[in-house]
Parts: sequence; structure tokens; C-alpha cells
Amino acid sequence: MIVAPFGRFTEGRVPDPGMARLFTRENRWQARLDVEAALALAEADAGLIPQESARAIALTARIEKLDIKRVLAATAEASHPLVPLIEEFARAVGSKHGGWVHWGATTQNITQTADVLVLRDAHRVLLHQLSRVLRSAATLAEASAGLPMAGRTHSQHAVPVTFGFKVAVWIDQLVAHTERLERLDDRLFCVLMGGAAGTFASFGEVGRVIEAGVARRLGLHPMRVPSRSVNDGIVELVLVLAQLAATIGKIGKDVYALMQPEFGEAFEPVPEGTVGSSTMPHKRNPQLALDLLTMSAELRALAAPALESMLHDQEANGAMTALLEDVSASAAVLAGDMLARLEVIMDGLELNPDRMRANIALSAGMIGSESLMLALGEKIGRQRAHDIVFEVAQEAAREDVPFLDMLRADPLVGGVFDETELRHLIDPAAYLGLSAEIADDLAAAAIATSERLAQLPERIPVLTHDARQPSLNRTQVR
Amino acid sequence: MIVAPFGRFTEGRVPDPGMARLFTRENRWQARLDVEAALALAEADAGLIPQESARAIALTARIEKLDIKRVLAATAEASHPLVPLIEEFARAVGSKHGGWVHWGATTQNITQTADVLVLRDAHRVLLHQLSRVLRSAATLAEASAGLPMAGRTHSQHAVPVTFGFKVAVWIDQLVAHTERLERLDDRLFCVLMGGAAGTFASFGEVGRVIEAGVARRLGLHPMRVPSRSVNDGIVELVLVLAQLAATIGKIGKDVYALMQPEFGEAFEPVPEGTVGSSTMPHKRNPQLALDLLTMSAELRALAAPALESMLHDQEANGAMTALLEDVSASAAVLAGDMLARLEVIMDGLELNPDRMRANIALSAGMIGSESLMLALGEKIGRQRAHDIVFEVAQEAAREDVPFLDMLRADPLVGGVFDETELRHLIDPAAYLGLSAEIADDLAAAAIATSERLAQLPERIPVLTHDARQPSLNRTQVR
Amino acid sequence: MIVAPFGRFTEGRVPDPGMARLFTRENRWQARLDVEAALALAEADAGLIPQESARAIALTARIEKLDIKRVLAATAEASHPLVPLIEEFARAVGSKHGGWVHWGATTQNITQTADVLVLRDAHRVLLHQLSRVLRSAATLAEASAGLPMAGRTHSQHAVPVTFGFKVAVWIDQLVAHTERLERLDDRLFCVLMGGAAGTFASFGEVGRVIEAGVARRLGLHPMRVPSRSVNDGIVELVLVLAQLAATIGKIGKDVYALMQPEFGEAFEPVPEGTVGSSTMPHKRNPQLALDLLTMSAELRALAAPALESMLHDQEANGAMTALLEDVSASAAVLAGDMLARLEVIMDGLELNPDRMRANIALSAGMIGSESLMLALGEKIGRQRAHDIVFEVAQEAAREDVPFLDMLRADPLVGGVFDETELRHLIDPAAYLGLSAEIADDLAAAAIATSERLAQLPERIPVLTHDARQPSLNRTQVR
Amino acid sequence: MIVAPFGRFTEGRVPDPGMARLFTRENRWQARLDVEAALALAEADAGLIPQESARAIALTARIEKLDIKRVLAATAEASHPLVPLIEEFARAVGSKHGGWVHWGATTQNITQTADVLVLRDAHRVLLHQLSRVLRSAATLAEASAGLPMAGRTHSQHAVPVTFGFKVAVWIDQLVAHTERLERLDDRLFCVLMGGAAGTFASFGEVGRVIEAGVARRLGLHPMRVPSRSVNDGIVELVLVLAQLAATIGKIGKDVYALMQPEFGEAFEPVPEGTVGSSTMPHKRNPQLALDLLTMSAELRALAAPALESMLHDQEANGAMTALLEDVSASAAVLAGDMLARLEVIMDGLELNPDRMRANIALSAGMIGSESLMLALGEKIGRQRAHDIVFEVAQEAAREDVPFLDMLRADPLVGGVFDETELRHLIDPAAYLGLSAEIADDLAAAAIATSERLAQLPERIPVLTHDARQPSLNRTQVR
Repeated sequence: MIVAPFGRFTEGRVPDPGMARLFTRENRWQARLDVEAALALAEADAGLIPQESARAIALTARIEKLDIKRVLAATAEASHPLVPLIEEFARAVGSKHGGWVHWGATTQNITQTADVLVLRDAHRVLLHQLSRVLRSAATLAEASAGLPMAGRTHSQHAVPVTFGFKVAVWIDQLVAHTERLERLDDRLFCVLMGGAAGTFASFGEVGRVIEAGVARRLGLHPMRVPSRSVNDGIVELVLVLAQLAATIGKIGKDVYALMQPEFGEAFEPVPEGTVGSSTMPHKRNPQLALDLLTMSAELRALAAPALESMLHDQEANGAMTALLEDVSASAAVLAGDMLARLEVIMDGLELNPDRMRANIALSAGMIGSESLMLALGEKIGRQRAHDIVFEVAQEAAREDVPFLDMLRADPLVGGVFDETELRHLIDPAAYLGLSAEIADDLAAAAIATSERLAQLPERIPVLTHDARQPSLNRTQVR
Repeated sequence: MIVAPFGRFTEGRVPDPGMARLFTRENRWQARLDVEAALALAEADAGLIPQESARAIALTARIEKLDIKRVLAATAEASHPLVPLIEEFARAVGSKHGGWVHWGATTQNITQTADVLVLRDAHRVLLHQLSRVLRSAATLAEASAGLPMAGRTHSQHAVPVTFGFKVAVWIDQLVAHTERLERLDDRLFCVLMGGAAGTFASFGEVGRVIEAGVARRLGLHPMRVPSRSVNDGIVELVLVLAQLAATIGKIGKDVYALMQPEFGEAFEPVPEGTVGSSTMPHKRNPQLALDLLTMSAELRALAAPALESMLHDQEANGAMTALLEDVSASAAVLAGDMLARLEVIMDGLELNPDRMRANIALSAGMIGSESLMLALGEKIGRQRAHDIVFEVAQEAAREDVPFLDMLRADPLVGGVFDETELRHLIDPAAYLGLSAEIADDLAAAAIATSERLAQLPERIPVLTHDARQPSLNRTQVR
Repeated sequence: MIVAPFGRFTEGRVPDPGMARLFTRENRWQARLDVEAALALAEADAGLIPQESARAIALTARIEKLDIKRVLAATAEASHPLVPLIEEFARAVGSKHGGWVHWGATTQNITQTADVLVLRDAHRVLLHQLSRVLRSAATLAEASAGLPMAGRTHSQHAVPVTFGFKVAVWIDQLVAHTERLERLDDRLFCVLMGGAAGTFASFGEVGRVIEAGVARRLGLHPMRVPSRSVNDGIVELVLVLAQLAATIGKIGKDVYALMQPEFGEAFEPVPEGTVGSSTMPHKRNPQLALDLLTMSAELRALAAPALESMLHDQEANGAMTALLEDVSASAAVLAGDMLARLEVIMDGLELNPDRMRANIALSAGMIGSESLMLALGEKIGRQRAHDIVFEVAQEAAREDVPFLDMLRADPLVGGVFDETELRHLIDPAAYLGLSAEIADDLAAAAIATSERLAQLPERIPVLTHDARQPSLNRTQVR
Repeated sequence: MIVAPFGRFTEGRVPDPGMARLFTRENRWQARLDVEAALALAEADAGLIPQESARAIALTARIEKLDIKRVLAATAEASHPLVPLIEEFARAVGSKHGGWVHWGATTQNITQTADVLVLRDAHRVLLHQLSRVLRSAATLAEASAGLPMAGRTHSQHAVPVTFGFKVAVWIDQLVAHTERLERLDDRLFCVLMGGAAGTFASFGEVGRVIEAGVARRLGLHPMRVPSRSVNDGIVELVLVLAQLAATIGKIGKDVYALMQPEFGEAFEPVPEGTVGSSTMPHKRNPQLALDLLTMSAELRALAAPALESMLHDQEANGAMTALLEDVSASAAVLAGDMLARLEVIMDGLELNPDRMRANIALSAGMIGSESLMLALGEKIGRQRAHDIVFEVAQEAAREDVPFLDMLRADPLVGGVFDETELRHLIDPAAYLGLSAEIADDLAAAAIATSERLAQLPERIPVLTHDARQPSLNRTQVR
């Protein structure tokens, strides 16, 4: 796995999402055996192969019953992604029933359906991570719903906001991405069971029945057209994860900026024992926020090859299939690693209200210029008010005089408002608008989403053996 | 983002989708005036500004009432994207009411909301184009549902399919993208009306009321958090269009491949008078299919900057806003141009059943090897059958002997099946599976979707003046 | 042209690089006529066509002699990128000689060679822009070579630097990209003159002679293999421009960050009359720095489709050719617009040494911790020194006590150094290393490069008519 | 960045380039020790640390002398990429000299310089792979220099070429990329030795001397400005590898297309024992060509994040550093894997001259239409000749009559040329132009380049211990 050849040195600071384990060879092979088992059972129900054989196949479909080394050696020899596994599996099933293994299926029917099972587990991991992140975000938004700070557009002071409002912006997008992830179901979690070209030719008239049987056992959907050239569902997963990565990157960027000594408003948590710099003992570098920026770029970079992988030739181009396999696995691993870091940040973010207050004051009252202009505009017209306030603000900056003093001194402004009114008009704390309400609303939305996600079972069972004993023999993540 | 400085020389061959006109300065400015009008009316309803002023503003909100040259000159002078337009607008409204223009709004509230109106018109154009494409695709799929041809995976013959099945693959994805486009509504077609930082500070307590009023008049939704940093809805539009471009690119690639002299199975239509080559008079080059490949790459390349545009700083970074403006407009124009070409191809595609038949025969019966193997497998077991058929196929290829002759000569195969059975087993026309059924099913799905889309009105009215007379004063597309 | 459908509202603030005019239809068509003229002259020299005809062709090769409307109408009819232009050109040449126009050439020989001529003019424009940018950067680096400010890594204070050192980093990369641009010559500025597939078949034995003749007249190189599938030179131009865009984006990001009220260290120039915000009169937004960030993302996004355009099929795929045409033209236009903005920034950047000083003090002396640690390390060993200084720095931050006071109070540190030594050790101005030298060195490098570039003629003449009167009939840029 | 979690099933078929081993933790840590050793020796020479200590450090700088587990545990605890390794290294050096380990250096000085050493080894591996590929390509080009086949533009028959000419196109680009790789030296293979911000503050006046000493020992260059924000050299490596990947992707696409049953002109080698399909025994799928397409997309996708990694903040942003580390390592591994596959293809490509001949005939002589038109044009003028030949070609296609028959029957053409002349004019073998000469020229160029590369030593020695015994203790690749 190339993603980060060295690992990331922050690994010790974050919980392991368990994502990488889902994409191990063993776990992916087990998923393939699950698919072969479901196929055999469905074929037996349709009368295509003997029931007894299907049962034998289903009972043997456990990776620990196979000789992995033999499969690896045969793969190197045969240069085929599946046949060596099938042959070993058939051998393990035994000569009586082994001949019915993989009946009528093409390689991709098994490998892609199995990969979808793994992606479904990965998807479930991500939803549980999002549940935890959203719960922490809700707590943070509530706690800081009324905490004033400078609102900044293009990194210039605009009007005041509260920290909770900022968190509301994060929550809004995280919830949206969660809903996008949930909505993928139909075209993502599908069996690909139409045979070599998607026409069901090898299954004859019972093609759709078998497809339905396999789908039911694996908890997946059938495809409207079971062609390998139809991969937009998996591509969409990558694109949604890329959007999630963009949002998490934005959060990382916000935290990174607020940690600067010139801001000093918020800090990612730094556990005891962490070393900042080998040579500058005073440094407390951002680490997790940096990881988020790095991985955001890495995951977003997967959108292009995901889209390119849709350019299949005719009924399939295996190069596109392989490309999307690599890309989707990489995207899932990166998303898991990002959410693991986001969890820690969201849980432990330290705020500094004093610096927030001090920074608002940097613009010496001018952050209230809009409020003042609107009040003045009601008296003398918007455009005239804008021009006057603009002039006063420019002069205050030029002369380095407090905005309030300049306003009092201005004949027109000073004539309309007395000092108390002026003070109130340019008071940031009086100009927060609905910041707190929005923070509270989004905290509530985050909690609702978090709770819905938390109730999802950790895994979706695969009924390949006996409906009363669902198999969960693939990797347990947490 | 990507220019075609010369236009495309194929423009004369395709209908003009009218998309470029939507993104002209005039049309975008008109949309801004529509938003200013809706804002004034909503503010009057909330008691923020006089009703009379709002009416005057709404009645003047037509681009033809403004002095465009004056705005352009002032823009060059002020280096501001909106203030010059507002000032000219206020001037046109007159001194009595002009002061209430743009009350409490920030630039982005107007420009982004207006751009969303333009994108909504573009979205509607695309849906109508898709309606026409799907109708043609349905006709094509029905007509060729039973027309056999070689199924090809990795550009090697796999099992036979029908041409209609191939079209079904196209339809399936086009319908999926259509549904994605329709689903964007919630987070895409929104007013951004929360003031400078999204807190509604300038509107005071009635912020949400005004937002709702503007939204209702423009037929848009409010935002959960009306922050400029929340742009995932527009980004998602670009991503869906990139997926659409990938699918159309795949269709273009299919047609391009089938047009090769070595295939000769399908051809994009070539109108009388078209010139193939300046120097090789015999050439009938693909043109529209090439355009699809070019533009597919161009539109897919917009996914990366769209995702990057989500990395706003704090409450906004204008560079990200501008980036997404450029990217989304470019994506819409490219998508319109692609669909215009796809319409022509889908309407006029010429098929050559003789070459399809001849090409199936290229593998001299071996395209039926799966069918044979399965039948043989039922007698002697799947693995053994695979090995024998593999051997025979390799030898047939090596010796350049027809597959049927080799099969008859094989002691085991020849002993199990007689010639009639063998002929049937390797007959492509007998091994089409559910190709025809799938083609028919997807034709029906295409028609249903096409009809639903065709019933959508061409434009969504903007009620900025009088509810009884909806304004459609922006560009009429078709 | 889609790049920025609305233009950019900052256009009034920056010089017009004239790049867009190079890519107009007229200018590109003129370049094609130049190539046809050079071809005819070369063919006459090789005895392929009559000298008299070549002269007639060369003399008529001016766009103003053609009926453009006729060409446009024929293009719409014929759907061919060149044949209509050739036919009109042949008509203008007259029936006696017109038949020798385009002799033996294929469309792409003319269109690509002509596009290369346009790209060469664009390349020259960029080099002259870089010359001006580097000259301004040199002035800035020299003036601020010794101006101390906080050095920041990961946006945390590291060790002090000078502003001139920061400019040296910019210069170093700009000079490197300039050298990359200059180095492209061999594989970029080439005629493509090998006929339909690159084999010179239509020219017979004299193929290489004609190629050399055309190349000489146009000031271009021949190609080792004149195949349309060989386009890596043009792709490399796009990649170098993407690297340039990345560096300019970094400069924009630096300026954007230093302009924040919390920093206040440097400002892009704001001309009189510029409006900051429609609603917040106090705002002085970055504008050109934002443009740089937007355009950096847009130009970098062209690298992917440029690379994709190398995936030609066999002897050519016109879709890839068209893709690279669009991409390279877009890249040139964006690069020109970026450099125009960079010129203005580099020329007029305002520095605020007071804020630089004040910001260094933010870390209350801790920016000197490395210096202290090294001095202490010489006495007590590096690791022990690191640990002690780390402890003291952490405690100073925790307790909000000046670093110097903590150091004095520390028994070990206080025992080794007296207050004067301590003050010196943590004095940023005493710990600038070679900042000033590096700034000066790079200023010198910038000046040397700038002067070399300034001496390049504005245009490279095309000798299509008479060697004594080089033609410069294509657009004059400045 | 992109993982292939499963490896690639074709691994057994190709030589191991050894690239992945270069990027193991052990090898990268060894490189860091090499840098620390070189630093200590250079510092001793400059009088900064004792000579005896430097010798002790250099002698201990072997990964096998360290307790790796201890470093791993401390890394998890400290969450720092280097300090734990340094501490363990210092411990191994011993208390007397260990304190001088890492004197005055910042983390990035060591990690980045070490990564550059690893990239240099990777670069060397790639050059040797290219040497082998070019040698095979030369053999192929020579052997097929005169072998006629259809030249195809836009996948339509254009004029004939030879297979050797096609290989010449491949060689031309591979040689160009090789030269690009060789040219990277200056800005890629550099020590980063300027301390925390690049100002040499910690080294005092001897900064440049130490930099030079380290550079000399490691065989690297100094940097003009040793700032972490200057990373264009490494980015350029990724971009050149992306271009190489695009070219190799084009070669893969060519082979993939020629292997189609409808073409049958060339085949990647298939070793005995390879399995084509689990269900279609007749299939001989492309495998290595598919890998090339997959990996081409994966490597090209790294260009975007490489470019993004140039957007450092001020003196450094660690997120960008980490991004480029991941991207450059991934690019090197992918390039190695691609070249390994290309070696096998180029060595064992099977050609089928009969099918080439048969396919030329597909256009029934029309591939000679250009030749005919030019000959006719000499008699009756180019435009008239084009129109007549166009008409005849269209009719021949419409009526399915051999081109020759139509030509003979045409009154004008038949009047000008007799049958012998016509036959010759449309004979593909007589219209190959300089195909063979170009093939031979490029074969010679490939051999020259291959031999130059083959003479490069496998590794560049690192002189950290004793100039007479260069250390090669990092991984031996082959």
C-alpha cells in the first residue's frame, strides 16, 4: 500500500479506524468466498446445481479452510486474479461438489461483488465515524454558540460572528455529506451477476432469479443492467468522499489558521509528550490539522482517475476496473484516516475567548461599520451613508485613530448619533445577528444525524450459510 | 475554464443549446436585478423598507433600463464586481427610492443568488436535452434489441450481445445521471441571503423572514446556514456533470471504435457536404464522436478545481467563490455542447448488421466457448470442461482451424455432443441471454424518463414584479 | 471563450498582456496563411511546384485579402477546420496558381504548425512579462534585504527571517521557471510537416528538404518524427506554466496572509477609487492576490487534461489534438493574466516594518529559543539543552510570562548566561543568519535574468515573403 | 497515493524493479543516518563540532546498530517524525559524542535530504530500466522498419506506414523523457541544509561551507535558497514521470488496440500457463497492456497534487511537504512498475504481417487515394483532383466496388492513367515515404541513449565514512 509509504507519524495520536484491515488480501478473499457461496445457494434454489453441492460450497467458504500459499503460488504462475482461488476453493470443497463452484459466473461477477461488500463495510465504518464527529461538533457548537469573534471574509474582518456559528458551517456540510453517503445505496451496493457481458447468457432464463437470490443473501441490490461498463455508483462514492475530504480540509485550514500566534483563537489538542520541533523548543506545531490538509489533497486527487475509470470500452475494459478498484480502496482508507483525526480535533479543540475579543478590537471598531452605515442610511440614504462611513473608515486607518473618535468628530455622523448610540452601533457583541440561533439549530441537526447513524448496526450480515446464523466472518472492524 | 478559442468547426452540424447565451454579461446582470427586486419586495413585506420604494425598485429591475456603458466604465474604475451596477440601478430607480436598493445585503448575496438562477436555467436546458437524447436512445434500443454482435471485454470477444443491449448500458447511466441532476435541488437552488457573514446581522430579527420572502419569489430554497463557505451544492452540480461527461465520453468512445474500418459496425451520421480530409479524399472521419472525447476530458478536468473551491477560509475566500463561478459556468456550457452532439449521434446512428455478423465469425465459433463449456461441464465437471475447451480453443487458434472442426475431432467432446448439438452450442444467436429483454426494459425506462422531463416547463418563473405576471425577462433559451 | 465568462472585475487595474488577441480567429488564420506560404516557397525550392506559383501564394497570404464571411459559411457547411480557408485562399491566389496551395500537406501540418507560431508569440509575451516581474522583485528584495520579520513554518513562528529573504524564495522559483520556459525550444517550437501520418509520403524523397525549408522560414525546428502523436513539447509547456501558476499562487497566498489585520505586514497596492465592499465600508479586500489564487487553481487544473492529451491512438486521435489546442491556449491566456497581476503587486507592494517588529514580539522572545538552545548545548549538550529550553518555553507560554524572565529565573540557564548574554541570544535581529546575503544574491540573479529577457526581440520574424522584409503581419501584442 | 491493495496479479510475469524496497522505512531511515553523518563530518571540518565526535557519529550511522522498536515506540509517543530516531541514534553513538548529533539542523534538513537520496536511487533505477526498454525498442524498430501496415488517424485508415515507424514514435518520446529525467539534476538532487527557515542562522557564518560539505559527501548540490518552500525540483520529477506515464499509456493503448481480433496485428507475449478467463476458455486477454493503462491514469493523477504541494505558506507548510513526499514516492513506484511491464512487452511483442497486409486491403485500395490525388493534381490541379477522387471514393464505398475498378471506369481518371499506373499509384507498399528511414534513425537514437544509460553506475556512492570506502549501505536494488 503506497498511500503514505512511511505511515504518518501522528498515528499514535488517533484511534485506528480499522479501515486498512478491510482491504487486506485475506478480507477481500473472504468476501469473494461469501459471493461464491451466495451464488451456489441461489443456483441451487433455481435448480441449476444440486442443493447438496451448494450446501457443501457454502460451508467451505471460509478463508481459513484454504491453503493461501498454494493460491499465491498459482496466481504468480497463472497471472489471473481469481482462477487460482477458485481452484483451491473447489479442491477444499472436494471432488464431489467442487465442480459446481463458480458455475456460470465470470471473474468480475465475483471480484466486483466482493469488493462492493468490502466497500459496504468501509461505508459503515465511515458513517459511525461521522456519528462520533457530529456528536462532538454539536457539543462544541452549543458551548460556543454565543462566543463572539471576528467574522472574516477573504481573511479581512467583515462582521462579527460566534465560534458556534463557524462550527455550524462545518456541521452543515458534514451532515450534507452524510446524507449523500446514505443516498448512494441504490447504485453502489449492487451485485454484478450478469455473466461475462451482462446478458445472463450463462444462466439462461433464470438469470434474473439467480441475481435476485445472490443479492438477497448478500443484502445487496440487483443492477438494472449488470454490465461491467456500469460503474457510476462506485465512482459516485469516490466523488462524495472527495467532497467530504474538501470539507474536512476546510475545517483543518480553519483550525490551522486560528492556531497562528497572530490569531491564537483555537488550538488542536496537544497531548503530553508530544514534541514540536527538533531544534526550536518553543514550537507547538499543528499536526492533525496538517494531516487533514495533506490527506484532503490526496483524496481530492482521486476524483479525476475515478471519473476516468468510467470510460470503459464496449462491454468492459479491465484497466478501468482495476483503476477504480485501486482508487476506491484508497479513497476509503484516506477518508477513514481523516475522520479519525477530525474526531480528535473536534473532541479536544481548545478555544481562547480572550484572543478572540482582542482580535475583534484590532479593527478598532470598524468591524461595526456595516451596522453604523445601515443606521445612518435610514436617516440619509444608503449610498450617502456608505460614502461617508467609507471616508471615515479610510481616514481612521490612515491616521491610526480609533474609529469611534473619528465618528464623533465627523460633523454629519456626530450630528445624527450621540456617543452612546455610536458605541452601541459599533459594538460587535450587539451585532451577532442569528449566530447563536444558527449554532443551536445546527447542533440539534448534528445530534439528530449522529443518533440516527449510531443506531446503524456495525455490519450488515451476509446470509450465505443459514438465515438463522448470519455470517460475519470477514474482519471485525472495531 | 478551458477555452475553445476557435469554437469547434462542427458547430454547423449540431443544434445550438443556447447555453452560452445564459452566461453572457447581460443575462447575468438581469438575474442580479431580479434578485435585487425580490430582496426589496421581501424587505418591504417585513417592514424594513417602504412598500412604495420596493415597487419602484422591482419595476425598474430590467437591464434595458440601465446605461450599460456607464456600469462598465465604473467597474473598470472601482474594480468592484457589483457596486457600479447597483449605483446605476439606484440612479435609474430615482433619488426618491434608489437609496433602498441593496438594503442590508452584501455583494455575494446578490451575485451568487443570481448565478444560481442562471445555473437553474442551464440545468433546465440540460434536462430538456436529456429528454430528447433518451427518446432517441429508446428508439435505437428497441430497433436493435435483437441484433446480435460480438460482446467485447478488454476489446476481446467475450460472449455475444445485441446492439440494443449496448444502448441499454448507455441509457442506464444517462437515466442515473438525470436522476442525480434532479436530486440536486435542495442544496443547489438556494438563495444566499444571510448578509456579509451569513448571520443575518444586517436584517436583524427578520432575517429568516426576508430570506424566505426572497426565496419564494425566486423559486429557490433558503439555506440551513447561509454562509459563503457552504458551496457544496454547486460543486455537486459540477461533479454530476463530470460524471455525465464521463458517460458521454464512453458512448463517444464506443461509436468511435465501431466506426473503424476493421469494425464497420456503426457510424455517426455524415451529412451531405461534409469534408473528411484535405488530402485523403476517401476518409470519413468521426467528428462528433471526437468532440465528445475532447469535451469529456475538458469537463472531467473541472472536478478537481470544483473540489478545491470548497477550501474556503473561515467565513469566505473570494478566490474560491470566483473559481467555482468560472468552473460551474464552464461545466454547464460544455455539458450543453456535449448533449447537442449526442442528440445528433443518437438520432442518426447508422448500423451495419452484416459487419456485426461477419465480425462475430472472426473468432470462428470460439465466442461460443462458454456456452459449450457449461454444457460440457454438466456432464464432466466444470474444471475439466474448462481445461478441455481451453486446450481445443488454443489449438484452433494456433492451427487456424475452425473451432467446430476441432471440437468434432476432439475424442471427449465429440463423444458427448454430435455436430448438431455442437453447432447449436456455439451459435452466437442462440446465446444472447436476456440481451433483448434488457434492451426493451431500458428503452421503456428511457421513454418514461424522457416524458417526465419533457413535461417540465422550459423555465421557472421569477415573481419579482407581480405574481400574476411572472417575469421571464432573462434570455429565452430556445 | 469560457475562462471567466464575465471577465474579471479587476481588469481595469492591470495592464493588458495582449494574450487573448493572439488567440483570436483572425490571428490564428493569419498564422495558417504564413505556414501555407512557407510551405509553397519551400516546395518551389525543392522543385515540387513552380516558383512563380509559390511567389503568388506568398504574396496573397494575408488575412485581409480573404473574404472571411465566405470561409465561415463554408466551414459551417463543410464541418472542416481548414478546407474552407484553403479554398478561399486558393481563390484569392487565382486560378493560375491557386491549385498549388496546400500541395501535399495534410490539415494538421498547417493548423498545428500555425498554432505553434501563436504559442511562440505567447511564450515571448510571457518572457517579457517575467522580465518586468523579476526587475521589480529585485528592487523589492534589495530594499528589504535586512528588514526583520518572523519566519513562519506551518504558520508558527520558527526563527526570524527578513522580508528580502522571502522575496528571494519567490525569485528563485520564478527564475527556475523562466529557465524551464527557455529550455522548451527544441521540442516545442517545431514544424509538423510530415504529411498525413508523418512519413513524408506525399513529398517523396524531398520530404526532409521541404520540412527544413518550412522550418527555416518560420524560425522553427524540424521534428525527429513528425507524427501527430508526438505532442510532448506542447504538453510540457502547459506543465511548466502550471508550475509557474503554482509558484505565483504561493506568492498570492503569502501576500493574502500578510494583509490580514492580525498580521498587517504587507499589502497589495490599492489605487484610489477602488471599492472594498458594498456593505462594509471599512474593508480593504485583497483583490489581485485573490485573482492569483483563483487562476492558480484554474491553470493547475489544465495539467491533467494536457497529460491525457498524450494518449493518442496509433498515428493520431483528433480528439487529443483538439484537447491540447484548447488546453494550451487556455494556459497561455491564464499565465498572461496572472503575470499581469503579479507585475502590479510586485511593483507596488506596501510593507509595514512596525507590524513586522510587533509580530515577532508576539512570541515574547521565544522565536530565539533555537539560538539559545544551541549556545546552551555547547555547554551542556544538545539534548539536555533542548529539554531544558523546551520546559522553560512551555512554562512561559502556560504562565504567560516573558521568556527572558523565565530564562533568568531558571537555575541552570541563569547560571550559564547573564542577562546581557541572554538578551543577545534571543534577539531576533541578531539571528537573521544569511537572510540579507541571500536576498542580495537573488536580487542579482533576478536582474541578470530580467536583463537577458528584456533583450529578446518582441517577436520572431517569419520570412514568408522576402528575407529582407520579415513579415510581422500577425497581431502586434504590445 | 493510490494503493493497489491486492498488488497486481500480473506481478509474477514481470521483473521486480526493486523500487518498493527503496521506500521501506528501513531504507529511508538509513538515508537519514547518512545525512546526519555527512552533516557531522562537515560541521567538524568547519570547526563547529569536534572531529572525534563526527567520526563516532559517522561510524555509528548504520540502521542495524539502532534499536528500531525503541524508535517506533517513541514515535508513537512523541508524534514526531525524526526526534525519536535522533535520540536513539545519539544513544547508540554514546554519551560522549551523542550530544553533537543533529547539531544546528532542523528536522526537514535531514528528512528531505534523505528523501532526495532515495529519490536519486529511484531515478537511477528508472534510467536503467529505460536503457533496457530502449534497447529492445531499437531491435523491434529495426526488424520492422519496412513492414507495411495501415497508418491510422482517428482510427480511420490514412496513408500506409510501417510498424517500425510506429515504434519510432514510441522511441522518440521515450528518449525525450529520458533526457528530461537526466536534466532534472540541478534542482532535484539538492541538500536542504539551511536550518529551520533556510537562513543558516544556526550555523552562523559557516552556513554555506557546511552546506557545501554535506552536499559534496552526499553527491548532491547546494540550493540557491535552501527554503522548504522551494520544492519545484521534486515536483518537476513527478511531472516528468507523469509525462512518461502518458507515453507508456499510449504505447499500451496501441498494443491493446492491435491485439483486437478485428486487427490481429500485434500481441503482447503470453507465457505458457497464463489463464485468460475463468469462464471463456478461448480468451487471450491483454494483461500487461491493461496494467499500463491503469497505472498511466494513476501516475498522471499525481500531477495535480504535486502541483498543489507547491502552495506553501511563507517559510513552509508541513502539509505540503508531506503531500509531496507521498506523491513522489508513489510516482516512483508506479513508474518502476510500468517500465517493468513495458520491458516485457517490448522484448516479446509478436507481430502478424499477414493481418497487417489484410487490413490495409480493407479499404480496397482507397488508402492510396492521396497518392492518386497528388499525381492527378499535377495534371488537372489540386482542387479538381481532390473533388474527383473524393467522388470516386465515396461511390466505391457506397457501391462496394473496388476502388481500382471505379478509377478505371472514371472517364477523366481513366483517361489520364492506364491500369498499370493506377495500380502503382494506389499500391500501399509504394507509398511508405520515409517510414523505414525514420525507423532506422530512431533505432540508432535509442541504441545511443540506451548505451549511455547502461554505463551509468547503479548507485551514486555516499561518502559519509571514509572517502576510500564509499558507503552503499542502503538497499541494493538489483
